[in-house]
Amino acid sequence: MKSVYLDYAAATPMTTQVLDAMAPYWSEQFYNPSAPYAPARTARRAFEDARARLAHAIGARPGNVTLTAGATEANNLAFASVAGPVVVSAIEHESVLACAEAHGARVVNVAKDGIVDLVALREAVAGDAELVSVSLANGEIGTIQPLRAIGDIVREERMRRLERANPTPLFLHTDASQAAGHISVNVSSLGVDMMTLSAAKLYGPKQVGLLWHADGVELRPLVLGGGQEGGLRSGTENVAGAVGFAIALEQAEALRPAESRRLRKLAALVRMELRKAVPYVVFSGPSQDARRLPGLVHASFPGVEARRLVIALERKGVYVGTGSACAASRMRVSHVLKAIGLSEDVAQGSLRISMGRLTTNEDIAYAIQIIAKSVEEERGRSHREVRA
Amino acid sequence: MKSVYLDYAAATPMTTQVLDAMAPYWSEQFYNPSAPYAPARTARRAFEDARARLAHAIGARPGNVTLTAGATEANNLAFASVAGPVVVSAIEHESVLACAEAHGARVVNVAKDGIVDLVALREAVAGDAELVSVSLANGEIGTIQPLRAIGDIVREERMRRLERANPTPLFLHTDASQAAGHISVNVSSLGVDMMTLSAAKLYGPKQVGLLWHADGVELRPLVLGGGQEGGLRSGTENVAGAVGFAIALEQAEALRPAESRRLRKLAALVRMELRKAVPYVVFSGPSQDARRLPGLVHASFPGVEARRLVIALERKGVYVGTGSACAASRMRVSHVLKAIGLSEDVAQGSLRISMGRLTTNEDIAYAIQIIAKSVEEERGRSHREVRA
Repeated sequence: MKSVYLDYAAATPMTTQVLDAMAPYWSEQFYNPSAPYAPARTARRAFEDARARLAHAIGARPGNVTLTAGATEANNLAFASVAGPVVVSAIEHESVLACAEAHGARVVNVAKDGIVDLVALREAVAGDAELVSVSLANGEIGTIQPLRAIGDIVREERMRRLERANPTPLFLHTDASQAAGHISVNVSSLGVDMMTLSAAKLYGPKQVGLLWHADGVELRPLVLGGGQEGGLRSGTENVAGAVGFAIALEQAEALRPAESRRLRKLAALVRMELRKAVPYVVFSGPSQDARRLPGLVHASFPGVEARRLVIALERKGVYVGTGSACAASRMRVSHVLKAIGLSEDVAQGSLRISMGRLTTNEDIAYAIQIIAKSVEEERGRSHREVRA
Repeated sequence: MKSVYLDYAAATPMTTQVLDAMAPYWSEQFYNPSAPYAPARTARRAFEDARARLAHAIGARPGNVTLTAGATEANNLAFASVAGPVVVSAIEHESVLACAEAHGARVVNVAKDGIVDLVALREAVAGDAELVSVSLANGEIGTIQPLRAIGDIVREERMRRLERANPTPLFLHTDASQAAGHISVNVSSLGVDMMTLSAAKLYGPKQVGLLWHADGVELRPLVLGGGQEGGLRSGTENVAGAVGFAIALEQAEALRPAESRRLRKLAALVRMELRKAVPYVVFSGPSQDARRLPGLVHASFPGVEARRLVIALERKGVYVGTGSACAASRMRVSHVLKAIGLSEDVAQGSLRISMGRLTTNEDIAYAIQIIAKSVEEERGRSHREVRA
């Protein structure tokens, strides 16, 4: 049976180059990078070299990059740098929303296309907010946020505080996990103070992420101990993970221009063909290409239960998510879809189709045919059930 | 050049079986275990199966095992379950001491052999302590602590509180990272309420650990987000890591009886031959075999700088640590050696020789010859320097 994976926003397979680069640190060069003898110092150098390459890829200095066990930990580390209150958009990832709640969250609404309300954001930061956290791109509906405009608001507020001798700091954090590999994650051009990245979304190792912080941000450790990562993150360093992450980010950056174009075309094809096959399909996310992730299509089929649709599709070898994997496993309506004002009927029939490096035109042709057929069958079944 | 690695307490290489078991989850079965389609559910099952096997190996139920990114995080998670005060021994790992400090630490002294003072411990827990944390085996001098006796003290104190209607809970945590693979880590026979394990010390993957907790212990998350690990540890699950950890622990348990005997003999040989070659050598740790880790010898050479000795040894291909790798990299005298009352002169000339599965009799013969020669050379040099 043909098998088509369309959930790259949930997980990506490691590339051969990543695996090959990591392999030596699992076996021959397994040394603890904090040990004092030569082979351990070599492992330490490989680790610090990986950090330098990661920093270079985002236009930063190595000393400002903290390696973590994934994006969720990096997001938590960012929030631990402030006492609160914090300002977040309504469509942030669960880890950002959960941290924000613990810090006195001010949740700013988004428009129907998912773009954060800048007027409301300006009001929310005024006076005492210490952190704004808005993801560079949303992983469910693909919205790319106007981070530079948000940065301008943050800087204006800082100026206002300076004039009023208000010493409360204000920082801008972005979780760029879903954006990396699709749009630039250069920290200077983004104009942020902290940025989270995940290797797992970049065809790199799982459980590896980083938090970049600007000079002036004072990070506070979540995990205490041996004092690794400049005391910010204790625990034996993940040499293999850092090396794999560096290769993965470099590869993603090298492939980005061509891949973005290719995925944008595939996504346009998906939208066009799905519309043809299922005229009542509802697409969410921005309509402008420049404002959305190239390889992601959020499609809702009103009157269909996405949970059943996913099972029908998997029987035909088509693997599609219904939104953030974390929330999906708990089978509840996504907070993202609520925030953009989708009715429950539409939201419950939603698929997130996310394409990646291995997705071909043939995959898409097959998947659309299967999706269209399965949607019709599911819709027929639920109509019969309603009538019965 | 012959190369002899004698720092298994700092890091162990992954076994082929561990690597082979993990490999599928890096590439073909890379799915996010929280995603809703069949291959992702298969990854979820592999992850939960690994948890069940880990639980089985320590005589526990799977629901009480939380997977973490290593022992340091697991120790931090254990401490987050209580408000304080906490009681620890003076020779705990940095991560335990750092957590304890943040909780109002009562540090209990140890005897010259590293064994915790039970009378002092009894006094320290009285009334209001909420947690006792004592490692099952010390990673620097090899002391195996009388955990059952410590457990008895904890239970007596609980009874006393019950009688006095004192509602303050009291739990016993042990970091068994260094002990696992050498002595039993069955949680019932240890009589503890929480236990930390590390895959990295068991020929398993780095950055993988677990915290077991008894029913009645209420863990609190350090990292918030998607709600994985029952809300105790958010972030996409490390399927490969858990699978590798399970194989590693099972292998370690299967090999334990024979390996312990073999390593005990090797350690006896090291002590005998070193004593013969360098009569003024000072061994630390308990003298009784039953009270020390089988494969670990802590040897001090007064008048020699261990930092220089390590470099001299590495030139001959002998890789030996000087204590906990975390502390070693910061080049300061170990808190463990201070706590057992070693003079600074003796402490500064200390090597930790830790043997493991790949260590042979020939390795030991070669290493001892090199160590004896290098010690003499270093001692000669420092004598000349003193005279000059």
